[in-house]
Parts: sequence; structure tokens; C-alpha cells
Amino acid sequence: VPGAVQLDWAAANNWPPYWHGENPRAYDGLEDHFWTYETRLEFPSLNDGSRLFFVCGGVDYRFTIALNGQTILDQEGMFTPVEIELTGRARGGDGLRVVVHPAPKSVAEKTRAQADHSCKPAVSYGWDFHPRLIPLGIWQDAHLEVRPRSFLAEAQVDYRLSEDLKSVALQFTARIDGPSDGCDLRWTLLSPDGATVFSGTDQTPEIANPALWWPHDQGTPALYTWRAELLGEDGAVIDRRQGRIGIRRVRLVMAPDQWIEPIAFPKSRSHPPMTLEINGRPIFAKGANWVSPEIFPGLLNAETYNTQLHLVRHSNMNLLRLWGGAPAQKESFYELCDELGIMLWQEFPLACNCYPDDPAYLRVLDQESRSLIHRLKPHPSVVLWCGGNELFNAWSRMTDQALPLRLLASNCFQLDPQRPFLPTSPVDGVGHGYYAFRHHQTGEEAWSLFQNSSNTAYCEFGVPGPASGEVLREIIPEAELFPPRTGGAWKEHHAAGVWEPSCWLDLPIIEHYFGPATSLEAIVERGQLLQAEGYKGLYEEARRQKPVASMALCWCLNEPWPTAANNSLISWPSRPKPALAAVAAACRPVLASARIRKLQWTEGEWFDPEIWWLNDAPESCAPGEINAHLEAADGDRWPLLSWRAGALQSNQNLRGPRVQWQLPDLNGERFTLVLETPERPAAGSRYTLLFRRHSAKHATPAIMNLG
Amino acid sequence: VPGAVQLDWAAANNWPPYWHGENPRAYDGLEDHFWTYETRLEFPSLNDGSRLFFVCGGVDYRFTIALNGQTILDQEGMFTPVEIELTGRARGGDGLRVVVHPAPKSVAEKTRAQADHSCKPAVSYGWDFHPRLIPLGIWQDAHLEVRPRSFLAEAQVDYRLSEDLKSVALQFTARIDGPSDGCDLRWTLLSPDGATVFSGTDQTPEIANPALWWPHDQGTPALYTWRAELLGEDGAVIDRRQGRIGIRRVRLVMAPDQWIEPIAFPKSRSHPPMTLEINGRPIFAKGANWVSPEIFPGLLNAETYNTQLHLVRHSNMNLLRLWGGAPAQKESFYELCDELGIMLWQEFPLACNCYPDDPAYLRVLDQESRSLIHRLKPHPSVVLWCGGNELFNAWSRMTDQALPLRLLASNCFQLDPQRPFLPTSPVDGVGHGYYAFRHHQTGEEAWSLFQNSSNTAYCEFGVPGPASGEVLREIIPEAELFPPRTGGAWKEHHAAGVWEPSCWLDLPIIEHYFGPATSLEAIVERGQLLQAEGYKGLYEEARRQKPVASMALCWCLNEPWPTAANNSLISWPSRPKPALAAVAAACRPVLASARIRKLQWTEGEWFDPEIWWLNDAPESCAPGEINAHLEAADGDRWPLLSWRAGALQSNQNLRGPRVQWQLPDLNGERFTLVLETPERPAAGSRYTLLFRRHSAKHATPAIMNLG
Repeated sequence: VPGAVQLDWAAANNWPPYWHGENPRAYDGLEDHFWTYETRLEFPSLNDGSRLFFVCGGVDYRFTIALNGQTILDQEGMFTPVEIELTGRARGGDGLRVVVHPAPKSVAEKTRAQADHSCKPAVSYGWDFHPRLIPLGIWQDAHLEVRPRSFLAEAQVDYRLSEDLKSVALQFTARIDGPSDGCDLRWTLLSPDGATVFSGTDQTPEIANPALWWPHDQGTPALYTWRAELLGEDGAVIDRRQGRIGIRRVRLVMAPDQWIEPIAFPKSRSHPPMTLEINGRPIFAKGANWVSPEIFPGLLNAETYNTQLHLVRHSNMNLLRLWGGAPAQKESFYELCDELGIMLWQEFPLACNCYPDDPAYLRVLDQESRSLIHRLKPHPSVVLWCGGNELFNAWSRMTDQALPLRLLASNCFQLDPQRPFLPTSPVDGVGHGYYAFRHHQTGEEAWSLFQNSSNTAYCEFGVPGPASGEVLREIIPEAELFPPRTGGAWKEHHAAGVWEPSCWLDLPIIEHYFGPATSLEAIVERGQLLQAEGYKGLYEEARRQKPVASMALCWCLNEPWPTAANNSLISWPSRPKPALAAVAAACRPVLASARIRKLQWTEGEWFDPEIWWLNDAPESCAPGEINAHLEAADGDRWPLLSWRAGALQSNQNLRGPRVQWQLPDLNGERFTLVLETPERPAAGSRYTLLFRRHSAKHATPAIMNLG
Repeated sequence: VPGAVQLDWAAANNWPPYWHGENPRAYDGLEDHFWTYETRLEFPSLNDGSRLFFVCGGVDYRFTIALNGQTILDQEGMFTPVEIELTGRARGGDGLRVVVHPAPKSVAEKTRAQADHSCKPAVSYGWDFHPRLIPLGIWQDAHLEVRPRSFLAEAQVDYRLSEDLKSVALQFTARIDGPSDGCDLRWTLLSPDGATVFSGTDQTPEIANPALWWPHDQGTPALYTWRAELLGEDGAVIDRRQGRIGIRRVRLVMAPDQWIEPIAFPKSRSHPPMTLEINGRPIFAKGANWVSPEIFPGLLNAETYNTQLHLVRHSNMNLLRLWGGAPAQKESFYELCDELGIMLWQEFPLACNCYPDDPAYLRVLDQESRSLIHRLKPHPSVVLWCGGNELFNAWSRMTDQALPLRLLASNCFQLDPQRPFLPTSPVDGVGHGYYAFRHHQTGEEAWSLFQNSSNTAYCEFGVPGPASGEVLREIIPEAELFPPRTGGAWKEHHAAGVWEPSCWLDLPIIEHYFGPATSLEAIVERGQLLQAEGYKGLYEEARRQKPVASMALCWCLNEPWPTAANNSLISWPSRPKPALAAVAAACRPVLASARIRKLQWTEGEWFDPEIWWLNDAPESCAPGEINAHLEAADGDRWPLLSWRAGALQSNQNLRGPRVQWQLPDLNGERFTLVLETPERPAAGSRYTLLFRRHSAKHATPAIMNLG
């Protein structure tokens, strides 16, 4: 503990790893049993009125707790922690039992719809990147705690920043459990550098010129430390709690020009706001969807978080969307994001289902959402609440009138009004998709789809890529490795037959551009190239659409187990694909960027990329010159243009000239568009593109039919 | 009392009527004073522990109440009733004083923005149909009440209908003020025909096969009567309350085909639902915006309501939108709508302003919205809560994230979750406008704007028409009557210089179609014709767009004082314009309808109306034949087509053939398209259109320039 019933069962039976081949199928049905964890209580003698508590951060999903066979708690919901006083009820050696109930299933058919009457995250019922494997168990720490007779059951710090951000009014609140006569509360606030800013019994001190919390690419994610001390009559410290706060103001605002729309009668409203504003500054959110890095939430740990969140930060991302299909993460995740200056969009556990107006469901959702809001409210990194994933889409069929979403909106307003709330993603004006380099039916490339769109935010878009050969060899039996199959381990690991039949390996798309592949290595290299160049073009296009567009969040950052192919940038457990570096390049605060219409070019065509300077930084700068040239595979360089831009204002882009250059016969099947920025070398960009000779080059021209 | 400080002041000073000429200007500034109402208390001696209360339904807007000079209540907000116990505090002859404070004004400039930090309805700060005249005073009944020692402070009936509507679970709740030991509560429920359905102390009885409340055009607005009796130890009735409930289920649902949208990636959500569903049946809402029929809410009374609501019902309307610029109405309004089966869309008092996240404002809004929800929740006629008018539009600049709207959503969910809630109108997909027969800038006619739109609901659209000569002669001094001026009494009464310079008389539009007018009578006749035909075309077009469109609500039904020209269908106080009859015709449950592209036709043009059967009735029928012919001014009849439709399904339309007929030289400047329906004579329709001879008829044809 923490762990999962499946992991314990597998270990007890010496099962091979769940992530290899088709092994997950061995776990089918384990979630339909009752599982019992039992222990004998050991604790010191409770003198001086000390008190004993059983404390557990969370049990997945429905469970009962019994002391010596007597039920003392019956709860549904994994996000509401357990705290049971055992003082006077338990003696050393008593039996404490946690019985984990079968996973909730509202219907018989084995689909995500089984999760539609519960707050159990839907992803584990099977998703296009997640095997059907439904974890159960004690997923958070569980232990006994001895507490003094009077203790701090709760302590928190709220604040209100003045409109000009120059002053912050703090509000300390604490709840004392036990007799509090003669007790006093001392509050201390330490600045980010450890200096004491305030210490005393005043619960509402004001602090001038607070150091603000910023996302890492906009400033310093300053964190204050607070301490609450419960003092006895003699002034001695009886109990203490401490935590951190980051002081910042977050709003979701309209893009500057958005209010103009709509012009025409009969007039509808403008789209809802999707631009995050931190401390008065609009931020272009660059990031990805976080899908929980483990199938079993009991395995989530600070080390994994640390590795992946540093990858996120070093990839110039500033926001993660904690997608509602997956569970909310453990505390260390949010603490790290607070420290690293990574903004979080936190969803409640609803995704791609029609969650009902049913009173029993609403009761659990009320409890679970209150617990989540209560736990996550102190984290400055959390900048947005959201009801869940794609609930307004045709496959979910929820609407603004659905009581579960009205409940979540109400709870967020009542408990945490200073943080914005979205009912779901997408809302009107926001894009989800596409999820391939080119459209499976129309053949239109994702670059072009974006270039012809005008969304307020791109909150999901995917370009799948295969895992590395190393990963593939670990998860797929040798005999199945090449050529990739549309069944067996490849299918189990999502290379085929999910969403579209060819997903996620999308071999027909790879072969469309490169022809048949004769080795696994070639497939991996080509698929990863499409993913890397695809993502680069999409992130940069979304950025070029600023300020109308305000977010570029790819689907998805990571994965909960090793897929053979996936839209993820990081293979499980924490192995980056080449696309991660491409995204990091596309998300640099300042860069030279090219809007390129398509990937593949033919001899004689007019090559016409449009050149831009992109700036998401809070500083303006003199970016200097962009020199565009083309590098052929044989090393030949063809200069295209040179553009000297004026000043690049903070947080603004500059649109530059368009190349118009008729492609000669380039040697080789690939070429590179290079943007060099001599005065600012780190801002240069490179785009790998495909070339083919004109097939009809030496043929006799046909008479054109003008009819 | 009830009344208004301005009315009392005017009466005391023998001022002429406020609704004549430019008289309203005399009232400027009266709202900036403190006004004191004082009385001496008279009441019987309180024996047997009887208790004395001062009760008042509402004081507009901020006020203090003092007993013998001692303040006993200080309140902001006109919608929260007053109930103060005076037992033991007051003696006969004591002075009770109500001091009405100056009207709230958040800024100096005399615009509606002055109301943006309060729950004072914004309309009285000046609107395009309402003079700037800001009422203050005791607008609801005020009196002393003697109550028994223990009494029913509150009693209410909630219910939950089963999914199949065949069973209703009632929930009686009451609050007893005073000692309740030994007391009992007896509940009685009487059916719509007066039979006792239930009587007893069970607070949660179930009733099988309840008679449902329906809008009048869909069924019977059945009302049950409930009675709560507080019984003393001896079984005698100490206190009683009674009320009515209508049992119905209301939902706001998506139109059947709406879930298909959107097809294209990157995908946004579909528009929010706007189809009202009553008892499982989608209803096309036909109605109007209700703007309060008096400037002074103290003058609102059941007689006015009775007259206007019967006009509404007889005009085949089934829904009124209680626009948020005006105050919520008195109880008798809602009671009548319950009885008449008229659905209500109730807005909170926010309109066309950016109401702030300010804590003081939020506190009053919280109090006022809770009071309104509490008061109106029992009314089955109220089918929808809405935050207010045009708050998401560019001139208001509120968004989904605005705390006032999050607060209203939360309060509605917490107190009244079974009733849908909209943050404002319009939301995405909903249309407001246009407000003229033809667009002031582009010249496009409103018919064409609608025919080229695809909105989910048309919640405001206006075609102005002048008041009758009778009304004009009452409100405009004789000397100013003709020609109409753009200043003076005409301007004061909204004939010019509001919204667009020519509104609402829109003389240039009248002259565009009819040429210069030489008398007041001609202007009135022509303007009223445009209004009547304009509205008819818009209502019928919205209906033809069913089920994508689900509402047609014109702006506006009535008016709070006599305008010289306005979009209203009824002149103040309750005098219908000809357009009301046209709307009544367009809203008949079953009718033959023509989609006509434009008003004015020229000799030689192809006249091409498209013929439809429209059915909003819950029954299907065999409608039979539609014979279309044209009637010229000289009585000549030109047959156009005959169409025999198949069965007309309940609540569905049938699209028929399109006329294609080249217009000959018709005698006269008007002609009529007549749709006769021999098997169902009451379903026929007539459309008055304009004709002109081809001006170039006898000219030599020019050589056409094909370049």
C-alpha cells in the first residue's frame, strides 16, 4: 500500500509484466471481485489525552472499512480522503480491514459507458491509448496518526490581490479539533527567500508589493511559505501546519478583437473567453494534455512526476491540461508544478459519456468535486477548473443544462470563485483534433486544417508517431515485430483498430509519403518524422493565430503504458520521442517561423512559405534579420529571401514576406527550409520537407482540354 | 402606497400627466432625494400571545425603516420582501417611518451604466423606448399583520415527476415560527376540479397519473391547490397557508439534428440547447418580450395584467420573455400566467451593462436573486431562468467567467435545479435583431436576414410601427403633430434619435416604400402596415426553420408608457396595434404559409413565394389543399398554384412547391397573396405586398454591356 489489487494479485501469482504483449487480457474480470486488505493495529499508548486516527488519502473506488469486523466507513469515491478517529474504539492488535468493492459498471457492454454513473475515471474502461484494465485498491498513503488532544484539523490561507497587484490581503483560517479554550493561533508567512514577512495572531494581514507567482516563461513562480501554530495556554506549540501559497491573479478573458464579432444580424454572442491572463498579462498557453503516466494510480510517484515535468518545462511548455478521462494526480504533482511554474487546467472525472441527472450520482459527484476543489485550491499552478472532456460533443450529448455540470459550476463558484471554470472542452470556438498528419477521409493535411481555421484555442490536436525500436522490442514479441500486424500485440498496444482502423501507426499515411517500408527501423524513422514535423507546424500555426487563438495543447504529452504508436510525445515510462524536441523548438519564446502549406513538394511547383517572427516573451526585442534558404539533400543551398523585421513587441508576432520560388530539380527525396537569424542565433528554425521529381517531366505535353 | 415618490410629489403639486409631451423632464433629479413615508401604527390589542408584524412586499430601492426614530431595518434591493416583528417593540400610535434613499448611480454620466453596481432595473435610467425616469418608493403592498403565537412562516410544495410522467412524488415542507410542541401539520391537495387528492400528515405522498400543466396551445394548464394547516394540541387550526402547483417537467434540449454539427475538424462543440421541452414534448415557443407595462412598478396591477395576458393568449403566443432590463412583476402576473398556460422566461435584473465582480454588488445580487427564486419557484408558468439581457454582447462585455453570472447560475442550481438556466440572451446560436423592416445601412430586409440565417432561436426581433392617431394626439401637442419632428415630444416619445437616428418612426423607410406622406394618417397607416407584414413574415420564417429554430419572440409585446413609434405590438396602456392581429395570424397552431423574398415587386419580375404548411399543434391532421392566388387592387384574381399536402404530423411542418409566375402589370400599388385552404378555412393566409410598374417599360432597350 499504496498500490492496486491487480498488482498485488499478479505479484502473488508471479504473473509476467502487465505491459508486455497481450498480457493485459489476463486481468480481465479481476475488477469484479471484492478485495480485502487487513492489518493488525500497532500504536503507542495514548497518554495525556492523545488521539488516534486512521488516515488515508484515497481508496479506489468503493470501499468499506471495518474495525474488528464492525463497519466504520462505507464510501464511494477515490478522491475523498479518509480520516477516522479510533481513540477509545481501537486497541493495539485490533484488526483493521479495508474491503475494496467491485468496480462500478452501469451497463453490461464493456465500454467507457460503464463509468457513466460514477466518479471513477473512465479511461481504464478502455480508450484508444489505454488497455481495458480497471484498477482498484488503496491508491494513496494510509497510516495511523497520533495527534494531540487539540490539533489543527485544517488551516488555510486565502488571499485577495488588489486590482493593481501591489497589495495582497491575506485571510488565514483554521479549524481546531478538540477543546480550544485558552489556545491561540500564531501565523507566520515567509517570503520566497525565507525572510519572515509576517508573524502574529492577526488573521487578515495585508502585504505590500508581494512577489507574484508567474508561469516559468513569464517570470518567477514565487512561492511563500505559511505556518500555523496552535499554542497552548503556556504558549507552547501544541500542533502546527504549514504550506505554500503563490500569489497571482488568474482570469479567462476575451481576445482583444473578439468583441467585434459578430457583426451580422440576427446577432449571436461572441465566443466564450479562452485567453488566460495571469497577473494582468495575456498568456499564450503552450502545452499538452496530461493523461496520467500510469494505469495504476497507486504507482504514481514524485520521481515520475519530476522527470516528466522537467521535460515539460525544458520543452518550453507552460500549461498542462489534466484531461478528465484520467484521475487527478497525487499531491507531489501539483507541488512540483507550483515550483516549476507550469500552469494546470484541472478537469473533474467526466469524459466522453452522458453523465446523468441521477440523484445518487450527483451526491457522489458533489462529494468528490468538493474534495478535489478543497485539495487543489491552494495550488497556484491550477489556473482553471473544467467539468470534463468533450461532454458537449455528439458522442456524449451533455449540455449546459446537465445537472452534473451545473453542480460542478456551482461548487467551483461557492468554494473557489477566483478561479475560472469551463463546463467542458471544447466549448464554442475551441478546436479538438485532427489526430493524424493527414485526414483519413479527405486527405487534407493537419497543417492546412489549422491554417484554414480560426479557433479561440486548440485544446487537443494529435499527430501519432511510433514508439522507438527499443520500446517496440520490449512490448512486442519478436515474432510479431515486422511487418507490423493489425492484431496481436500491435493491436493491444494501439497500433491498429482504434478510432480509425489504421490508428495509431497509420501505416497507410506513412506509405503515402514515403512508399512501402522494408524494415521496422524505416517505419519508426518515417513515422517519427511525420509526428515531429507535423506537431511543429501545428504549434507554430496556432501561435501565428495569436491573439485570436490563445492555446496550443497537443494530444497528448505522455501515456500510462507503452503504446506501439500514439499521439504522445513521451513513451511510457518517461522516454521522449523525437517529436518532443520538435515541440520544444516550436514553443521557444522567440523564434523565426515559416507557414508552409504542405509537406510534399514537386519539381516546378511554386514553393511559398510565409515568414514570421513569433514572440510569446514578456519582453520586446530587436530580433534582426531572418535569412531563409533551402538545403537540398546533397548539401546544395538555395537562398530564398532575407527579411529585416522592426522591433518585436512583447507578446506579439510579426508577419513577414512570403517566399515565391519555383522549385528546381533538387537531389533527394527530402529538403530543408532553414531560417537563420544571425543576430539571435537561437531563434533560427529548420523544417524538413519532402520532394519529388515531376513525373511527367520528360513526357510530351498533352494538349490541354479547355472545355 | 403602493405607488412612487414621483407620483406622490406630482399629485401634491398638481403636475400634468407624466406621459404627455416633454413632461418627463420635470421629474429629472427627483430620484436624488431622500423621501420619507410616515404613519402612526394602529392595531388591536394583542391578547393570547398574538404577534404583530410589519410586512411589505418590496421597497424600491434602498431604504431604512425606523420605529419611533430608531432604525430597525436598512436594506438595499426591491425584490426582497420585508417582514419585521414588532411584538413588544411597538405600541399603538407609534411612528413608523420608511425612508427611501436616492436611486443608485455608479457613475455621473446619465446613462444606463449608472445601474451597473446595483439590482435596480436598468431600464428606468433611459432606454430606447423608455424615458429617463427613475422610480422610487413602496411598490408592493405594506401593512401590519397580527399572527398567532405559532404560525406558518413558510410552506411549500416541491415535487419530482417520474421519467414516464405517470407518478409524482410530492414533498411538503413548512417552517413554523413560534413554539411547535404538540402542534401538527395537515396537508391537503385538491385536484384541478376541486376533488381532494390527498389529506394527511404525510409530507411525501405520491400521486399517480397527475393532471399535467401544459401551455395553453398544447393542453390544459392544470393547477392543483394545496393547503397547509397548523393544528394545535386540541386539533384546532391555528394557521393555514395555501397555494397552487402545476405539475410539469421542463427541459431545455438540443434540436433533433443539432448533434450532427459540427462536422469539420478542428471541431468545436455544437451550440447550446434552446428547445423547450414540456412534459417530454418539444414546444416551438411563440411569443414576445415583456417589458413591464408601467414606468412605476407601484402602478402594476392585476387588471392591466389580465387585459394584456388575455391579448397574449388570444394572439396564439405561448411564451413571454421577462426581459432583464425591467423589474420582475407582481404576484398576480405569475398567477395569471399559471392559469392561462403562458410560459415565462424570467430574467434577473441585469441588462446591457458590465456588472462587476465587486463583493458589495455580489452580496445584494445574492440576496435579490434568492428572493426572486424563492418567490417564483412555485409557478409552473416560469420555465426558464436567465441571467439577463445581452450581457455577452460587445456593449456589455460580460462573459461566462463573470462572478455575477456564476453566482446566479449557482443560486438557481442550489435552490431550483429542475428549471433550466441560461446565463444571458443571446447565447451562441441565438439571434437578437434586426429592429427595422429593412437594414438601415445595407438596405437588406428583415425577411431576407431571417431567411439567410440558421439560428437556434430568435429571441428578439423588432419591426417598429407608429402608434395610432388617437394615441399620438394624446401624447403630442397639436402643434407638433404634422409633419413629425426629430425633436420635441416626438423625440421624447422615441420617434427619433434612439438607437439609429431615424428610430423608431423610421420615416425614411416608410418613404422608401411609399414615397412622401402628406398626412399623419398616411404615415400611421403605412408604418403600421410595414410592422404588421414585417412581423408576420418573421414569425412564419422562424417557424419554417423548426426544428433547428425553436423560438420566435418579438421585441416587444408592450410598453411602459405611450411611445409615438415603437417595436411594441400594444400601445400603452393596453391598446393593440394592427401588428398584434398579424402576429396572432402568424402564430395560429396550423396555417398555410408563404416564404416571400421581399415586400416590393416590379412588373415583369418572377414572383416566387414558396408554400408551406406549418403545424405547432400536438395533433396531426389532414390539412388538405392550399390554393394560392394573387388579388390585385382592382379585384382581379390570378390563380398561382394548387397544392394538396399529405398528412401533417403533430408539431411538424411541410414544405411545398414554389410559385414561379411572371408579374403582369397589376393595377395599383399593392396586391395580396392569398392562400386559401378549403378543407380548413381558418388556416388560410393573406400577405399584402407592394407593386410598381417597370419604369423602363416603354423605353428603348439599351444594348447590354457584356464586358
